[in-house]
Amino acid sequence: MKEEQEPIKKVNEPNLIPQLTIDCVVFGFHDGNLKILLLKWKGTKGWSLPGSIVMQDESIDDAANRILKERTGLSDLFLRQFHTFGEVKRYNIAKHSKMLAHLIEKNLWFERAISIGYYALVDYTEVFPRPDEFSDACEWWELEELPTILFDHKKIIQKALQSLRLELNFQPVGYNLLPKKFSMPELQRLYEAILGKKIDPRNFQKKILKTGVVNRLNEVKKGVAHRAPFLYSFDCKKYQQVLEEGGLFFS
Amino acid sequence: MKEEQEPIKKVNEPNLIPQLTIDCVVFGFHDGNLKILLLKWKGTKGWSLPGSIVMQDESIDDAANRILKERTGLSDLFLRQFHTFGEVKRYNIAKHSKMLAHLIEKNLWFERAISIGYYALVDYTEVFPRPDEFSDACEWWELEELPTILFDHKKIIQKALQSLRLELNFQPVGYNLLPKKFSMPELQRLYEAILGKKIDPRNFQKKILKTGVVNRLNEVKKGVAHRAPFLYSFDCKKYQQVLEEGGLFFS
Repeated sequence: MKEEQEPIKKVNEPNLIPQLTIDCVVFGFHDGNLKILLLKWKGTKGWSLPGSIVMQDESIDDAANRILKERTGLSDLFLRQFHTFGEVKRYNIAKHSKMLAHLIEKNLWFERAISIGYYALVDYTEVFPRPDEFSDACEWWELEELPTILFDHKKIIQKALQSLRLELNFQPVGYNLLPKKFSMPELQRLYEAILGKKIDPRNFQKKILKTGVVNRLNEVKKGVAHRAPFLYSFDCKKYQQVLEEGGLFFS
Repeated sequence: MKEEQEPIKKVNEPNLIPQLTIDCVVFGFHDGNLKILLLKWKGTKGWSLPGSIVMQDESIDDAANRILKERTGLSDLFLRQFHTFGEVKRYNIAKHSKMLAHLIEKNLWFERAISIGYYALVDYTEVFPRPDEFSDACEWWELEELPTILFDHKKIIQKALQSLRLELNFQPVGYNLLPKKFSMPELQRLYEAILGKKIDPRNFQKKILKTGVVNRLNEVKKGVAHRAPFLYSFDCKKYQQVLEEGGLFFS
């Protein structure tokens, strides 16, 4: 019987970029509700973000897409890099030493790693979350009711949410979560879910229309008996132009 | 005579993070004019951004501050991380192999590096630019008249400018470039220099005042004979609140 032996892992495993990771904050939206995707580490009660190392022959964008494809089954997602986390001591390594020992041994975990944060927006009814090899659950959590979060991932989640909210000021965040033709109340529900606050409908409509980035169509929403709302679509060309010229506020 | 011998450099020099760099886009503003700080590589006609490796015991923010302090002499700058550049082939290494040979040999340059971009805003009359050990000049350049730019640094400059412009939509960019009490035309000149376009003064004043992030003071600008403009100051508390609640556009 031929016995196969694993090659001895060298320090600085040559096919990965040492001390660099990607962490993904996956926001799930459906019917006015915003959730977040978390993984439960095997043998612990702690939850973390979906993440991975970066391979030498892989761009950081490709690494983020790979992680999301593996966890959600989805590709071509609305995915944005939002911040890189590079404190010297991002987390208490001693606290997690037992949990991470086998990873550190395999050079898949470093005492210090710089993590590039990406956020994604998906329709959570389209996702079948799958745990990775280090976790035994992958589930959606309400933002207001998060479980125990490992490492510095709570900070990463907060920064992602802040970035997502601020990006509403200058770009068409989450257009992939709406039907191609949408009503103003549908767009407003998406924005309210992201902002975590109610917006005055008349102000909202006025502001959005003034930017010129949505076009009113000669159609109303079907299946609505009385006062059916008009339908709109995004004007992607105009949006691109606004983006290049400095965003919505000074447009 | 005692001969000192340099220790042999090991692969993955232990005191730096391998394959990670910082590049800084330093915007200089003065009197309505926006410039950018570039370094001329020794023995070439090419210019690049001020940048450096990151040490193992140094946060990425500290590394960026160190670079800026070394090149400009300034600390406590308005400094923002804006994007991380992680393509597999960010630049044509073969094209620059001669210029970089001594750096690659010393493990100070890698075939692939991920670069974290920071931008800074300074008053360029306060800066005495200093070249680093790899460059023989460090100078301000007009954005419209850039020289030959090395590597992918043109892309990094463009992304920095886009980020700076977009951040005007939701945060007090460049408040450090204005006197504590400033007139509306002074604020507008800063915004116009960054946006690279004229803004209608009445619209500008209306929009800025509506956000509530600047307070009108009971003072007018001195030394102006007729129709002296009122002075304003930033309301930092209000700005922080707007930032946390999702920016100016939906405030």
